[in-house]
Amino acid sequence: MSYNAHQTSPHPLRLKRLGIDTYQEPVIYMRSDCHVCRAEGFEAQSRVQVTHNNHAIIATLNVVTGELLAPDEAGLSEAAWRLLGARAGDAVALSHPPVLDSLSRVRAKVYGKRLGGGDMRAIVRDIAAGRYADIHISAFLAACAGDRLDLAETVALTRAMIDAGERLAWGHAPVVDKHCVGGLPGNRTTLIVVPIVAAFGLTMPKTSSRAITSPAGTADVMETLTEVELDVPAMRRVVEREGGCIVWGGAVRLSPADDILIRVERPLDLDSEGQLVASVLSKKAAAGSSHVVIDIPVGETAKVRSREAAQALSHRLVETGRAIGLTVQTVVTDGTQPVGRGIGPALEARDVLAVLRREADAPVDLRERALRLAGAVLEFAPGVAPGEGVHRAREILDDGRAWNKFEAICAAQGGLRMPPLAAHTHAVTAARRGRVTAIDNRRLARVAKLAGAPRAPAAGLELHMPLGAEVEAGMPLFTVHAEAPGELAYALDYIAAQPGIVRVEAEP
Amino acid sequence: MSYNAHQTSPHPLRLKRLGIDTYQEPVIYMRSDCHVCRAEGFEAQSRVQVTHNNHAIIATLNVVTGELLAPDEAGLSEAAWRLLGARAGDAVALSHPPVLDSLSRVRAKVYGKRLGGGDMRAIVRDIAAGRYADIHISAFLAACAGDRLDLAETVALTRAMIDAGERLAWGHAPVVDKHCVGGLPGNRTTLIVVPIVAAFGLTMPKTSSRAITSPAGTADVMETLTEVELDVPAMRRVVEREGGCIVWGGAVRLSPADDILIRVERPLDLDSEGQLVASVLSKKAAAGSSHVVIDIPVGETAKVRSREAAQALSHRLVETGRAIGLTVQTVVTDGTQPVGRGIGPALEARDVLAVLRREADAPVDLRERALRLAGAVLEFAPGVAPGEGVHRAREILDDGRAWNKFEAICAAQGGLRMPPLAAHTHAVTAARRGRVTAIDNRRLARVAKLAGAPRAPAAGLELHMPLGAEVEAGMPLFTVHAEAPGELAYALDYIAAQPGIVRVEAEP
Repeated sequence: MSYNAHQTSPHPLRLKRLGIDTYQEPVIYMRSDCHVCRAEGFEAQSRVQVTHNNHAIIATLNVVTGELLAPDEAGLSEAAWRLLGARAGDAVALSHPPVLDSLSRVRAKVYGKRLGGGDMRAIVRDIAAGRYADIHISAFLAACAGDRLDLAETVALTRAMIDAGERLAWGHAPVVDKHCVGGLPGNRTTLIVVPIVAAFGLTMPKTSSRAITSPAGTADVMETLTEVELDVPAMRRVVEREGGCIVWGGAVRLSPADDILIRVERPLDLDSEGQLVASVLSKKAAAGSSHVVIDIPVGETAKVRSREAAQALSHRLVETGRAIGLTVQTVVTDGTQPVGRGIGPALEARDVLAVLRREADAPVDLRERALRLAGAVLEFAPGVAPGEGVHRAREILDDGRAWNKFEAICAAQGGLRMPPLAAHTHAVTAARRGRVTAIDNRRLARVAKLAGAPRAPAAGLELHMPLGAEVEAGMPLFTVHAEAPGELAYALDYIAAQPGIVRVEAEP
Repeated sequence: MSYNAHQTSPHPLRLKRLGIDTYQEPVIYMRSDCHVCRAEGFEAQSRVQVTHNNHAIIATLNVVTGELLAPDEAGLSEAAWRLLGARAGDAVALSHPPVLDSLSRVRAKVYGKRLGGGDMRAIVRDIAAGRYADIHISAFLAACAGDRLDLAETVALTRAMIDAGERLAWGHAPVVDKHCVGGLPGNRTTLIVVPIVAAFGLTMPKTSSRAITSPAGTADVMETLTEVELDVPAMRRVVEREGGCIVWGGAVRLSPADDILIRVERPLDLDSEGQLVASVLSKKAAAGSSHVVIDIPVGETAKVRSREAAQALSHRLVETGRAIGLTVQTVVTDGTQPVGRGIGPALEARDVLAVLRREADAPVDLRERALRLAGAVLEFAPGVAPGEGVHRAREILDDGRAWNKFEAICAAQGGLRMPPLAAHTHAVTAARRGRVTAIDNRRLARVAKLAGAPRAPAAGLELHMPLGAEVEAGMPLFTVHAEAPGELAYALDYIAAQPGIVRVEAEP
């Protein structure tokens, strides 16, 4: 190799599109024999600063030894293309990234030190800017897990997460919100609570998430009914016109550090109360909320497993909220069974529509949960006495104002549409007479995902028999819905190999 | 998509070579629209079990959206090809990996619980088998960092790491070894200690590491003189013939979990005493050693910064060694300055040869350090009294037996060769008269790496002036060596932009 160092520094390479998706991790692909790798001493897994039009990101290097790239080319993962806003053929400059001082504060936490506001700000700012590798984030999460964040640190972390992104302001109070800790299948109360609260006259700018490991997220369900990928100005127009919205949080990017932390936290399966509180409350505060109701389902397979744990979490949520100027009201609910009948975006949307349209066979459990939570939100309003909220909510649902408001919100977000119907269905029936004694929620979710949910919006399943129901041999227990025959077959294969997903036992 | 689920399960894909090196992390590349991703619900970053000829590994999924693969093809990272022993065109079956029970023990440690022998064995076995993602390893390391491993846990971790790989046996005792905690530039005593000890008659089967972030590792230096990539049978033949060897540890794969832990530990920069002890002692025990001398350099820029810290580390090394049947002797040495004159594989080898061949200008500091450590090792032998070892070592070095033994070891490993000379050199001179008051080791290492070390074995630099030396204007301070003119230019550019790497101050 021979080149003039003065001409090539800082070593631009031309970008080539490889089409490799590493999820949210920025990766750069370079040839091991390119002049940048040789000059800078970069090797596989090196952290590399990639600069494009004065905008820099930090990416992990994957070295390419084959024929994918020319010597003066570099590839990027899809996440890196998005972060840089680059196009194929653009030149990028490559260098060693600056030393991250905030990592010394992560190490301090690992060694058991307490972190202050400045520490948390430095760490969260670098995380939000994409400067941490996943292993650094993992070490930070492990150091904060269990009871290793005290209340002051939780408050500092929450504030740092709010400050790392945009914060909406609505010019009046109260601005209300609701959140559910730990997903219960079918628990789509949000789509009922928002129109009730907005019809009452309160402001409720709701952002929701998509499914990551479950068959449907609230944003996936709402998307079968209207548009959810609104940017901040569009979201603001909807809320100013109708008092409420239900949009995908990923498009508005409030509390961006939280999205990055969650991506690493999920596969670690670390149950960190401090992180949970900071995650939930930072999103709410960044959305401009002043008053929040938080649903804490308690059950053996739910995130919170005992009344005592619910009480401790409730205390930390309320106290952290107080410190950052957010009024928090927690509601402990039953987390032992799925809610409603459908599992999958369109099937859950049908349950919601049945409740809003007051259909005779609307799922009672979904309706009553939604009314209880809406009631708690309405009690934030001046003039609504404690215990009165649920009655006001019931009036608004029963006289059709909630349904009218939901139609108006959908119209404002891009138009109401009906959720799709699956082309292929198959009913799984009881092999014997008896009583339903167990429903395996985890394997039911797996069936719905094998059938195509949430990617195929009509896919999923419909439960016909709740726990305790008496059934005759041959009666349908649940129906699998799929958009393609192959996916239906794959789900049914799984069911055949896994007997007892809904267990029916003969009575003695 | 339409397919018969009975035919395609378990979904084989054909392997295509893409030539992407992710260092040691196994990655699988699949199209998002391939039937496996759709049927199994795999997404970018999913963990996927890849089975080839009844051998299974777990890889991280990168989804390919472009034209890299046909619909029935999958690519692998270089690490995954190696682990599977697969060839292009082979079929692999893909499935969800089994749940890793040992992760619940990692979480227990994160939450502050103590781990027992069974816990450590389960964790280390899964790590050695490549079943952990890097973020899981990072969480484990963070949970064990600082003082969070007590002595019993350190012993359990050390035992688990020994049990996870092969363990050599030599049929007699003592079998000796030496190790240096924390790299000091130029500290290549190993290449002098091994021939002295082997010439004395003890058995010393030494494995060394290559550079990861430094300009040279001991194996890189030895490789400029002879072969170092010996497998276990070849290593055994050398040791049985000559009593000692100096080979690359990566080729013999003793304590394989340690290699994986170190890969994640390094970028985290976590200084974990328990991990360090388990890492060092598991390698020594797996190599079949019974008696080990451990060099602990103490200095402001060394790994161990105070006498107190050295004492604590020494205590843990000795006690853990006692528990696993290994006699450990620690030697605390000066860690304030680099050792010898060369930095870079061939230049450091030249320092070693000068000492072994008793040349007049051989670096005294390297010679004296090596003699002290060799002396400590010799005192493990029956009949060598405390304090006597260093004199025996000096005799063996001074009468030429050490050099003869080194030549014999190199001959047995594949033949002695002379280290290469760089084609391009440039002397950096003093701008003024004065005294050398500071040498920035970190930036010196950077210069050596920019000049091409360790990849270009002749590259690096030679220091002419130690701390405190008096110099005239125009006298050379150090000489940069490079194999290519471009690399020399690049190193000199860096030096020009970074004045004061060797600081000369006028005396008042």
